[in-house]
Amino acid sequence: MYDVNEVRRDFPILSREVNGKPLVYLDNGASAQKPQVVIDAVTRAYAEEYSNVHRGLHYLSNLATEKYEAVRGIVARFLGAAHEDEIVLNTGTTEGINLVAYGWAMPRMQEGDEIVLSTMEHHANIVPWHFLRERQGIKLVWVDPELDGSLDPQKVIDAIGPKTKLVAITQLSNVLGTVVDVKTISQAAREKGVAVLVDGSQSAVHMPVDVTDLGVDFFAVTGHKLYGPSGSGAIYIARERMAEMRPFMGGGDMIREVHKDEVTWNDPPMKFEAGTPGIVQTIGLGVALEYMMDLGMENIAAHEAQVAAYARTRLDGMNWLQVQGKAPGKAAIFSFSLDGAAHAHDISTILDKKGVAVRAGHHCAGPLMDHLGVSATCRASFGLYNTEAEVDVLVEALELAHELFA
Amino acid sequence: MYDVNEVRRDFPILSREVNGKPLVYLDNGASAQKPQVVIDAVTRAYAEEYSNVHRGLHYLSNLATEKYEAVRGIVARFLGAAHEDEIVLNTGTTEGINLVAYGWAMPRMQEGDEIVLSTMEHHANIVPWHFLRERQGIKLVWVDPELDGSLDPQKVIDAIGPKTKLVAITQLSNVLGTVVDVKTISQAAREKGVAVLVDGSQSAVHMPVDVTDLGVDFFAVTGHKLYGPSGSGAIYIARERMAEMRPFMGGGDMIREVHKDEVTWNDPPMKFEAGTPGIVQTIGLGVALEYMMDLGMENIAAHEAQVAAYARTRLDGMNWLQVQGKAPGKAAIFSFSLDGAAHAHDISTILDKKGVAVRAGHHCAGPLMDHLGVSATCRASFGLYNTEAEVDVLVEALELAHELFA
Repeated sequence: MYDVNEVRRDFPILSREVNGKPLVYLDNGASAQKPQVVIDAVTRAYAEEYSNVHRGLHYLSNLATEKYEAVRGIVARFLGAAHEDEIVLNTGTTEGINLVAYGWAMPRMQEGDEIVLSTMEHHANIVPWHFLRERQGIKLVWVDPELDGSLDPQKVIDAIGPKTKLVAITQLSNVLGTVVDVKTISQAAREKGVAVLVDGSQSAVHMPVDVTDLGVDFFAVTGHKLYGPSGSGAIYIARERMAEMRPFMGGGDMIREVHKDEVTWNDPPMKFEAGTPGIVQTIGLGVALEYMMDLGMENIAAHEAQVAAYARTRLDGMNWLQVQGKAPGKAAIFSFSLDGAAHAHDISTILDKKGVAVRAGHHCAGPLMDHLGVSATCRASFGLYNTEAEVDVLVEALELAHELFA
Repeated sequence: MYDVNEVRRDFPILSREVNGKPLVYLDNGASAQKPQVVIDAVTRAYAEEYSNVHRGLHYLSNLATEKYEAVRGIVARFLGAAHEDEIVLNTGTTEGINLVAYGWAMPRMQEGDEIVLSTMEHHANIVPWHFLRERQGIKLVWVDPELDGSLDPQKVIDAIGPKTKLVAITQLSNVLGTVVDVKTISQAAREKGVAVLVDGSQSAVHMPVDVTDLGVDFFAVTGHKLYGPSGSGAIYIARERMAEMRPFMGGGDMIREVHKDEVTWNDPPMKFEAGTPGIVQTIGLGVALEYMMDLGMENIAAHEAQVAAYARTRLDGMNWLQVQGKAPGKAAIFSFSLDGAAHAHDISTILDKKGVAVRAGHHCAGPLMDHLGVSATCRASFGLYNTEAEVDVLVEALELAHELFA
């Protein structure tokens, strides 16, 4: 039984006020709050158990290394990876996708080769491919969403041509909440010998993920959205793909031997982890993922679906509000604009006065904004601790904004 | 008046025991412990003030952004940069040097161009240049240290030829403790139109740094060695060099506009900070640097010089111990080996039993190990909280190791 009030008590920040009102935190798409167990793990790591990892033989170094390396297995379990050496620990999705762009795509792709991606991608899953377009003449092939915000997997599959080397696609749109059928896409891509990279920044937060079942090659996640510390993250890379990759960043740990005229690499995944890693934030990420798995990803998804259904009903009742994205089964992410000239930023400012934290802007999704014909939207994005009562506060605050701008 | 016992009380971990003995933490070269103010800042950021930065307009986002962005100015002050937009916030020296390698050197250097570096460099300041050697035919020109471990700046200057595009050099050897006269080198390099990158990972911890006075182009530091959180760091890049650079990692924040067929960049330094940054660890880094500046870098340097002098005297008294590096003015970093066949790892294990944490290995300095003709050393590296009494514990533990292996 998922008791959201009990869950809320795990998050100290949720009991604070903002502008004299109880905080209603609906900016989870940008970053999630942290449970006390994560904060405690971070504090303990610094106050009692801190050391650098991998290179020492003293007690604290061994302790920190053990705790750090255990996270690789936790991430593997969280993502359904068959082997923990398929997990590269890093600072988040941005680094993960850049690793694939620089380490896998750059040396393997030539002028005229193609990457298929959706118009709903976040900049983290666009800009690294623009680099390849600008620097190597790679062609980006875009697949637009349907009118309701859903993405037809067949359209993605049809966009794969003889020159396609990679499909780079989100599993859950950070703007529309659309869930993408990544499994169907990756099965078809695999038959055509095309690799699939999934931006799991949003999806891994809201639904169970099994990379083995999905059959993808790369799956990137970001720790700070997963209720973990900032600057933490990981990417799943299938063994065959890892074997094809050259290193990305150079430094300590990722080498076997360094001489003046020669350098050899450590085995994967260490080959892709240069220098002192984010030790404490990674330890905190492990605790966050354990926390989520203890709650149960199915339970989290069910709770959020319930809140989403309630929010949809309430928001649909306001005919002066336009919600972008109505795909069946969409996640609890609602981007909207208001009738009248009110700019998204003005709306978020009013909501903020009522303690409601939402995001306003382009949500790092330029091509989607172009496609929708808007420059910015407001976005309320829910997490595992949000409630129907908070939906009511959001609605009241929106009604106030509507009155003010009417 | 620098009261080291008062300083020690600021670091909670220093009161713990290891293997039943008081912790004597002499592994500062690998990573430093954290004062309570830093730990508190991290805890507070997560428990009370957390949000993503830059993209929100709600209260918590503005608060986090303000605290995060203030660190740019703190780093600028700490490093003596004239402008805070010359500071790129990142995860540490490894990322900083890779940024320069990928963003500045890679697009500007051609086959046959040369990079001058010292044999004392850390892998973080070697491997990114090996990438350029392997991938673009860049030539690495090495300058060896003298017998006492010092580095003759004139030899570095003499190694600069017509094909040299960059001098990449440490200001303080993490193995030998040698302080390098970076100012003399950079003045000469500037006259020849050659850029200078300084690995300040160690130096910024132990001595006052003024990049403007040094006249360098790039100066990289690592937060976790500066008593700040893991996964924090920064690099100073002179404005002229920033203007020459293309972006390194692609993602949110570093762009101005993203369309399907076009992308434009944010202004520096944001152009070089992709995606959600290490928000909380960067806030913690700011607190750590303020802590150091409050103590006073001159005071820290004077205290460490006193401990170093005492350590040198004690270690010199043991004729069965070989200390690598005796350069005048060297920092409190002592790498050593013992007479007899004892491997460095065995020594560190014995020291650990006495509560003394030292490092054993190649210290991420392969070419220097080759040069010294050793595969590994033990290294005791001191920080601002270490004492002469701790030197005595180290010496006692070394005497025990000597007896056991004699």
